[in-house]
Amino acid sequence: MKSYIVQNENALYHECGFSCDNALFLRFNADEAYFLTDGRYLTEAKESVKNAEVIDAKRDLVKCAQGIIKKARLKKIVFDPLEFSVARFGALTKNLNVSFKPQKNFSQIKRMIKTPNEIELLESAAMLGQKSFERFEKILRDEGVGKSEQQLHFKAENAMRHEGKNEISFQPICAINENAAKPHALPCQTKILKYGDLLLLDAGIKYRRYCSDRTRTTQMRDDVSFDNKNEQKFKDAFKQKIYDTVLKAQEEAINSIKIGVKLSDVDRAARDVIEKSGFGKYFIHSTGHGVGLDIHELPIVSPRSRDVVMEGMVFTVEPGIYLPNEFGVRIEDMVAVVDGKAKVLHANR
Amino acid sequence: MKSYIVQNENALYHECGFSCDNALFLRFNADEAYFLTDGRYLTEAKESVKNAEVIDAKRDLVKCAQGIIKKARLKKIVFDPLEFSVARFGALTKNLNVSFKPQKNFSQIKRMIKTPNEIELLESAAMLGQKSFERFEKILRDEGVGKSEQQLHFKAENAMRHEGKNEISFQPICAINENAAKPHALPCQTKILKYGDLLLLDAGIKYRRYCSDRTRTTQMRDDVSFDNKNEQKFKDAFKQKIYDTVLKAQEEAINSIKIGVKLSDVDRAARDVIEKSGFGKYFIHSTGHGVGLDIHELPIVSPRSRDVVMEGMVFTVEPGIYLPNEFGVRIEDMVAVVDGKAKVLHANR
Repeated sequence: MKSYIVQNENALYHECGFSCDNALFLRFNADEAYFLTDGRYLTEAKESVKNAEVIDAKRDLVKCAQGIIKKARLKKIVFDPLEFSVARFGALTKNLNVSFKPQKNFSQIKRMIKTPNEIELLESAAMLGQKSFERFEKILRDEGVGKSEQQLHFKAENAMRHEGKNEISFQPICAINENAAKPHALPCQTKILKYGDLLLLDAGIKYRRYCSDRTRTTQMRDDVSFDNKNEQKFKDAFKQKIYDTVLKAQEEAINSIKIGVKLSDVDRAARDVIEKSGFGKYFIHSTGHGVGLDIHELPIVSPRSRDVVMEGMVFTVEPGIYLPNEFGVRIEDMVAVVDGKAKVLHANR
Repeated sequence: MKSYIVQNENALYHECGFSCDNALFLRFNADEAYFLTDGRYLTEAKESVKNAEVIDAKRDLVKCAQGIIKKARLKKIVFDPLEFSVARFGALTKNLNVSFKPQKNFSQIKRMIKTPNEIELLESAAMLGQKSFERFEKILRDEGVGKSEQQLHFKAENAMRHEGKNEISFQPICAINENAAKPHALPCQTKILKYGDLLLLDAGIKYRRYCSDRTRTTQMRDDVSFDNKNEQKFKDAFKQKIYDTVLKAQEEAINSIKIGVKLSDVDRAARDVIEKSGFGKYFIHSTGHGVGLDIHELPIVSPRSRDVVMEGMVFTVEPGIYLPNEFGVRIEDMVAVVDGKAKVLHANR
């Protein structure tokens, strides 16, 4: 087994079931592991850290790590060069006769295949995320028309947070009409929701630190509902055509997911549907991304993906068509690869 | 003038009035400056970036930066080793015959002295932060008793966010009794607010990207009010003694602020009051920190500070006493150094 050092909070949590904003985790071969932190977090760390010795690093984590590395007489230690700053890495390696081996996305690669327990946690997150969408639907029906995009964004975030019971996994995107054509739209104070407007919501929550991620596009009406993606009706025939194309692209991508299939071919399955409909140039992002402790993690589902579908992967499938200054449609669900094929983690009523 | 490269969003914004999450800013000597970003942000960057040429870096910011650096025939370029990851710095410097000179906190050091305009923005932020405290007071009076700490935390955050009109500068701390003894308390679901409880709120908002930061400690009653720090009344004489000690420590620290005084002596002024009262070991953090585009920036006001008070500095003064398993008191205001002495940025009624 490799020896390695990590500092990112989700990487720490994955190693030992605990994290805080000032800690380092070291594993040497199979049998030695250390969690270094300072006095503020020591009590909690000792209660929660699993399978590692908790060490009080006092004022200087890096110096403490150096001492432990020296004592262990290691030759080689893996680190993620995306995770460590030049300053910290400089301090860590100074006067130390050990080879630090860079491995980009070291922890994310380890976390790419989820355990059955992690898949359960992600499924719970997805279900709670879906319930949050339902809370927002009720708000929309009761008081949505006449509210600004900014007010709706605020209410959407509150619906996700559910009186503080949920943490959000990212700032929701709540966009009306042409703002939905920007994949990362910021809410606007002057845009007011009217009956018949197209409305896109992209939002997620965390359940025991595992993230959910979901997007629905709908049309505002008295009984507005994001939930059933298969029965969204738009008055405007062109919008309906675009919506149906995105929905079909998502279905084809999900159906293509089988163990051993290239993730670039999953992307291709979605992209083919949109290209054949003539809107290929308006699908301006990847088809999906891994979800776990990080809201965006490995694998990536894009034309440049080199990975293949493996049992235990969890990722989003989220094609979209974005027509500048008109409107945008995106439909996103999380899937887990279970028994060799895709299981959609949102209840798909 | 130095040549330098920055990537942190607040550093970018300070250089040219615009930022986004994928950009680099380069300045060469006095007259050349470049803002590198990708297609997603190009239109907005061209509209908003001041005093720099906006460049479409396509898919690879770092490669584009290398091209510009080569063309300029620079010998030396300053960067912040805390800001760049090992991976990005490695890519940036590869095959480039230029000396990269590390300077920790490069941008924060530049931003330590605020312009009169920045002080106005910070004053506006402080006033809006104070108004947010007033909104939370009203909620407390109307429905505070019987709510859990977690629910109060949620309501406090909403009061700060003001229907989405404000961005918060950090997750508020809203803590009851013994939880207030933890400087970074997380809200608890089972702790319920009762009349007579001690309540601590530490919260802030952003105004045009500039942060506010404020803490008040009070006792729950029907006409509860955080606002007037000089007239807080506690039924319990011991709590009143601790509160009055912290208040006096804050006053002494604020009164000690004059141009040229060591920041370690400002810390000392607060610490002396608390030590003389016999609670020195329960004041477990620094007296203050700079506030600006970052919620925590330079200077630091602590026993180890090496800087002196300078015209245009803005920092917090926030002594506290934390009695484990009992309660904690902290009182925090922002001050600007104007006309040679401290101006408290919150209206101090």
